Amino acid sequence: MTVWSIDARSGERRTEHAETTPREVAALCRRAHELLPALDEAGPRGRAALLEAMADALDERAGELVAVADAETALGETRLTGEVARTSGQLRLFAEVLREGSFLDVRLDSADPHATPPKPDLRRMNVPLGVVGVFAASNFPFAFSVGGGDTASALAAGCPVVVKAHPLHPDTSERTLAALRAGARAAGLPEEIVQLAHGQEAGVALVQDPHVKAIGFTGSLAGGRYLHDLAASRPEPIPFYGELGSINPLIVTPGAARTRLTEIAAGLAASATLGAGQFCVKPGLVLAPAGGGLAEAMAEHFTALEPQVLLGDPIRAGFAAGAAERQAIPGLRTVATGRSGGERRVAARLLAGPASLLESHGLLLEECFGPLTIVLDYTDEGELLRALERVPGSLTVTLHSTPEESGLAARLTALARDRAGRLVFDGYPTGVTVGWAQQHGGPYPATTAPTTTSVGTAAIARFLRPVVYQNCPPALLPPALRDDNPWSLPRRRDGVLELP
Amino acid sequence: MTVWSIDARSGERRTEHAETTPREVAALCRRAHELLPALDEAGPRGRAALLEAMADALDERAGELVAVADAETALGETRLTGEVARTSGQLRLFAEVLREGSFLDVRLDSADPHATPPKPDLRRMNVPLGVVGVFAASNFPFAFSVGGGDTASALAAGCPVVVKAHPLHPDTSERTLAALRAGARAAGLPEEIVQLAHGQEAGVALVQDPHVKAIGFTGSLAGGRYLHDLAASRPEPIPFYGELGSINPLIVTPGAARTRLTEIAAGLAASATLGAGQFCVKPGLVLAPAGGGLAEAMAEHFTALEPQVLLGDPIRAGFAAGAAERQAIPGLRTVATGRSGGERRVAARLLAGPASLLESHGLLLEECFGPLTIVLDYTDEGELLRALERVPGSLTVTLHSTPEESGLAARLTALARDRAGRLVFDGYPTGVTVGWAQQHGGPYPATTAPTTTSVGTAAIARFLRPVVYQNCPPALLPPALRDDNPWSLPRRRDGVLELP
Repeated sequence: MTVWSIDARSGERRTEHAETTPREVAALCRRAHELLPALDEAGPRGRAALLEAMADALDERAGELVAVADAETALGETRLTGEVARTSGQLRLFAEVLREGSFLDVRLDSADPHATPPKPDLRRMNVPLGVVGVFAASNFPFAFSVGGGDTASALAAGCPVVVKAHPLHPDTSERTLAALRAGARAAGLPEEIVQLAHGQEAGVALVQDPHVKAIGFTGSLAGGRYLHDLAASRPEPIPFYGELGSINPLIVTPGAARTRLTEIAAGLAASATLGAGQFCVKPGLVLAPAGGGLAEAMAEHFTALEPQVLLGDPIRAGFAAGAAERQAIPGLRTVATGRSGGERRVAARLLAGPASLLESHGLLLEECFGPLTIVLDYTDEGELLRALERVPGSLTVTLHSTPEESGLAARLTALARDRAGRLVFDGYPTGVTVGWAQQHGGPYPATTAPTTTSVGTAAIARFLRPVVYQNCPPALLPPALRDDNPWSLPRRRDGVLELP
Repeated sequence: MTVWSIDARSGERRTEHAETTPREVAALCRRAHELLPALDEAGPRGRAALLEAMADALDERAGELVAVADAETALGETRLTGEVARTSGQLRLFAEVLREGSFLDVRLDSADPHATPPKPDLRRMNVPLGVVGVFAASNFPFAFSVGGGDTASALAAGCPVVVKAHPLHPDTSERTLAALRAGARAAGLPEEIVQLAHGQEAGVALVQDPHVKAIGFTGSLAGGRYLHDLAASRPEPIPFYGELGSINPLIVTPGAARTRLTEIAAGLAASATLGAGQFCVKPGLVLAPAGGGLAEAMAEHFTALEPQVLLGDPIRAGFAAGAAERQAIPGLRTVATGRSGGERRVAARLLAGPASLLESHGLLLEECFGPLTIVLDYTDEGELLRALERVPGSLTVTLHSTPEESGLAARLTALARDRAGRLVFDGYPTGVTVGWAQQHGGPYPATTAPTTTSVGTAAIARFLRPVVYQNCPPALLPPALRDDNPWSLPRRRDGVLELP
């Protein structure tokens, strides 16, 4: 069996990649497992150098990588150039995390032989969880793929990675792999700390492999839920960190609609159709005051939109079906359609209707991947709050309000907090900064692991496991736990956090 | 249907408790969900006062609680008095955690409009995950039951709790509940922030209830795995923090056997039979040098042991079956048996055989709950390392060695680190200190959530979820995220950890 690299714009076959057989996946995972000590012994500083070398290698190859990814995904040079920079920047940020050292969460409790019962000397730190399986996403061929956030945080944690390539950009995946391996060689580490598998059967084998101890996944609800259930039903269940689907509601209060309708209409239309609406944080559901005219004000922006090439045939088919299903909902109007033209291009859609539709149409709360958004009108605060209460777990909730509406805004913020991982105020959810304070996650179905994040420095915690050493002879202590703190780590001693 | 409180020593029925129906469980969970804002608004300081009031109420009722628990579990007054103190101490420790504030993991990233792409103002903190279901353990009627570590850490996180009582101590459960509720009233909070359900069907309903967002469980492998699978297969899967079963290998090196055999034999026999061997960290498998004489040296301690009352009929039946199954393994000798006598009492067992038995008898790597331990003799380092490699995920690994054996000890420690959450050196695994540095967890089947702990202050992280506020107007920011840091929290600003 074969995975073809397809030109997204022309539909033509580019190159052929053999599917990885289950037996080959087992060999990849076994090899990854063998390399655990190498990554571990490199220590935080050795791994920081590794991530930086990988970042350099990606940057050096940026031109070539962007060209291949653009052919496979049609995302365009500008966006893809930015995405390579985001990806190398992400690797460098995890190098910072490794040098800073808080990720080890070192805790030292002194012995107290006179306590009842006597207290031993306890020294606790995080260690690598084991081999990590990563499923690349279709919509971020770099930042959420072979060298993306899951891989960066897993390698930072000390976990070798086996990536299941996304079938819509296999060439980009192979070339990214080559860059990461060049980085590994430059850092003096075995290049097989990152490996690559192709094909759906390989993905299933990866989730089931006994050497794999966690999965990072970004993709669809159906595929993600299937793999989640597989991970949970293994003889040894493993954590499945899945980002599945998100409706990302955006709320416009009456005051905001009154005072800045034109601005919001333009910003929202741009956010909903950016990258052909193929972002996991695309605002897919807008709650706006009835009679405020938001949908109408957005219409001109949609009508003016050029037809867009989606990431590939299955994505286009999914969008066509999802849009048709929604357009068929009685009471939901198609307010505007973007320009059409060209066999492999789709027209953006703007739909609108009353918020009361939510009572009978759960479909309105499900993500439709692609350039489509739905504006629902609420008649009063009660209906707005009820609508927000219906919203399932989401990556983001966005609120546009005015300072005069602080009571309403506080009530909405409280509801929103329990439904999302990121609350955006007076802005748009697209654009996820990679940094120390970022949170990219949320209650199900946004993710399968609501206590974690897949973007930002805290993502490393997913691939670490705490171990405590009780009354350990000094000669056997790892450096992070030694009295002289040779790595200058922040540590918690008898409950008190101490900076180096 | 009814759950009976049974006197563990006499087998007589004491009192009757109606099983909670699934409909009643739904009402409990709905009520718990309604109380989320109350616990949340109390804030870390209000919840600290709550936990302290609960601790005081437990201490005030210690005499009564111990008497009831002793009747139901036969664990004895001394141990149970200590356990109440451990439990109230645990509640007070989480009050410290709340006042210290690191649990909120506050991160602030400044805006940078000139960056490419521009960076927004991001402020991240942890919020309560939602209602938590707790399954009480048989063997710790206080410390891992109604007011135990799961409840303490969930309440600290701001999550109301619904406890499934353990059927072997329903009266203790009800009286503990009364104490916790008295504490809640004293702290001015609704007493239903902790609720109690009885019966197996109620447990199933609790795991499936849509208001429940996480489960804490301590119990058997079979029961825990069943409930884990139920939690994973819900329409909305939820985290299942389960502690299931652990063999807790203890290794004696040739040097340790040579230099302190008598001391190790006494300490190990005491640890393996403490509390009638009903500890999750009981050393169930000992790896000792062939010809070193450890089993023989332990024999006298076992032979002298009085017969012991177990926690209840199902535990005794399980022990009898588990012991018989192991004693029937060809090549495994019953080296010593404790005294017998009394209808409801069991005799301790010490079994021994060659480490080569591990190759064909996986049963030797499974926990046998009760006063039984197995000593396996290894002939050389190769056989010892292979034996340790076979050990599945465990709460603890214990190593007895001498300073002269540092090379061997380092190799064993490296293997052990990847198999357990706590490494004990030259001591015994029983006795789990509650503190900042403790780690009680480990790879499956020790737990279903290897990245977490159920004992120690880090246990609170299981019930928290991060949320980031992007460009939030100051008026809508929670206190933890305000510029003036009114709660004097440790916070990370632009990647740099700052102490208050």
